[in-house]
Amino acid sequence: MVVKMLSDLGERAAIQRIAEILTKGTNSRGIGDDCAAIDLGKEYLLVTTDMMYQRTHIPAQMTPYQMGWFLVAINLSDIAAKGGTPLGLVLSFGLPKKTSELFLKELTKGADACAVAFGTTIVGGDTKETNEITLCGTAFGTVKKDEFMSRTGARPGDVVAVTGTLGKAGAGYYALKHHNFKKKLSKALLEPVPKLKDGRLLAQQHSVTSSMDLSDGLSASLYQLQEFNNIGFEIKKSALPLASELCELMDKNHGIDPYSLALHFGGDYELLVTIPHERFEQTKKMLKKHGADLTAIGIVTKKKDIVLLDGENKRILENKGYEHFKKHNF
Amino acid sequence: MVVKMLSDLGERAAIQRIAEILTKGTNSRGIGDDCAAIDLGKEYLLVTTDMMYQRTHIPAQMTPYQMGWFLVAINLSDIAAKGGTPLGLVLSFGLPKKTSELFLKELTKGADACAVAFGTTIVGGDTKETNEITLCGTAFGTVKKDEFMSRTGARPGDVVAVTGTLGKAGAGYYALKHHNFKKKLSKALLEPVPKLKDGRLLAQQHSVTSSMDLSDGLSASLYQLQEFNNIGFEIKKSALPLASELCELMDKNHGIDPYSLALHFGGDYELLVTIPHERFEQTKKMLKKHGADLTAIGIVTKKKDIVLLDGENKRILENKGYEHFKKHNF
Repeated sequence: MVVKMLSDLGERAAIQRIAEILTKGTNSRGIGDDCAAIDLGKEYLLVTTDMMYQRTHIPAQMTPYQMGWFLVAINLSDIAAKGGTPLGLVLSFGLPKKTSELFLKELTKGADACAVAFGTTIVGGDTKETNEITLCGTAFGTVKKDEFMSRTGARPGDVVAVTGTLGKAGAGYYALKHHNFKKKLSKALLEPVPKLKDGRLLAQQHSVTSSMDLSDGLSASLYQLQEFNNIGFEIKKSALPLASELCELMDKNHGIDPYSLALHFGGDYELLVTIPHERFEQTKKMLKKHGADLTAIGIVTKKKDIVLLDGENKRILENKGYEHFKKHNF
Repeated sequence: MVVKMLSDLGERAAIQRIAEILTKGTNSRGIGDDCAAIDLGKEYLLVTTDMMYQRTHIPAQMTPYQMGWFLVAINLSDIAAKGGTPLGLVLSFGLPKKTSELFLKELTKGADACAVAFGTTIVGGDTKETNEITLCGTAFGTVKKDEFMSRTGARPGDVVAVTGTLGKAGAGYYALKHHNFKKKLSKALLEPVPKLKDGRLLAQQHSVTSSMDLSDGLSASLYQLQEFNNIGFEIKKSALPLASELCELMDKNHGIDPYSLALHFGGDYELLVTIPHERFEQTKKMLKKHGADLTAIGIVTKKKDIVLLDGENKRILENKGYEHFKKHNF
């Protein structure tokens, strides 16, 4: 008998095994979505949880302040992807005995600063002694039922679009790796910005047919949307909104393909959405009016493939991303 | 300069440092309480989070099923202590690469079974790779504002009471330690029962002036209530409702003082409440009618001491309990 280990399974298969076992609630939806959504009458209560672990998720250069910021930001990003408004967060800090009081204070300050920057607060938590730093955050919020942006609902013909720019986190990673401590470059990786405003603006338009955040990188996220919606995508390489940080990095000539970073590197925390063709321009315009960018990068197809259009060239987009238990981008 | 480490601080002081830094929300209460309470209009949204870590919180004899059960139970216990009804839980599993698929399934089954046994479900979660098993659970629920049972509100003259019996978890610990694998004994320690029904019954009586769960043991909990309320207690040793499991253990003659276990050992997950003298009997009766026990164990005093009355003898109750970063009961 072959005993399967989690290292063979991968994170997504592990979550599938879990989902198969769990009893389904009659008042909730969303296993496999960015947030769980619990029926509160007119609204959904959105809840999401994320764990960060020293060896696999925390780069050596990350300060305690940035760890706190990151923990809050990645959880708020899931609320953003569903169109929600955050109500608060609870945090669990698993910390080694030898952690200094200063570390604890900086960690807390970073978490608090991120929450407050996005209009919410840390309302409670837990501390425990662990061997390695293990941080767990849970964010919760609300969204009107008719503004909830699910991962399912994309239809052939819909425009695929992303908020903001792609490759910021990847550029930050290479900047750190090559000891190029340009603060601006690494900041995008270490202090990501949850797109809560963009999420709310999109939700209010009622035009989004499916939505998720780009925590795992664009290609991995497209493959997840494909599975959820039983559709395919045609992505136009030249349409990808490359981050200016990527261009700065390219100047240094590290031999890195900026498109590869924009396509496959996790950690950008932008939103990936599908919108019916006839609603796209109006939605984009409304976001623009509020200082938010939305860029069409392709279309949803009936054919299940995910195709990358590179000039005259067509090829299947590789599914490379950010999957724990298998490999780690940090 | 002396750099303070968390090992010098202890868990409660660490939480104080955190609370001093955090920005207070205008819509929430409850830092330092069992749950955070967020204003939803007529109700509070209750949220609580707890982390379990292999080396310090998971005894070697605990099965994966029991780990899952335990994680859900300790979080639901916090909802119970506030008089709440659970809406759901999200769980984060930090697991080593070499974890078997079977382990993951059993862990999930235990968590699911506990949630379903108490009328709720697991609505989402996260899996991550860690070196040691690290499990983080967040439970959320609701309670009418006028039924919320805070940690603060105890007044001199109030009766101090506990639900159920004391020392079950302590008995289970010694049974495991002495390789006395009586399933019934260890079950109380490894598969605790969150007192949700008792919590709801108490809340509906509107008679409770303060409430918390006994996760840390009776003495540690009394010292926490003392601090929160700026009062003292007189506890009558002979009134403590000793668990029948303790008596079974005593028969084996391990030289253990059953009262010491009932007073100081964590993990019983009963509720500790204060109730005005004139409302106590009626409240007790109402619980009895529904098959739940409430036992008066002493009174709230103006004097700040916590005194143990042992026959003619009076002494200050020791503050021994369950505090992480300092020592561990497992």
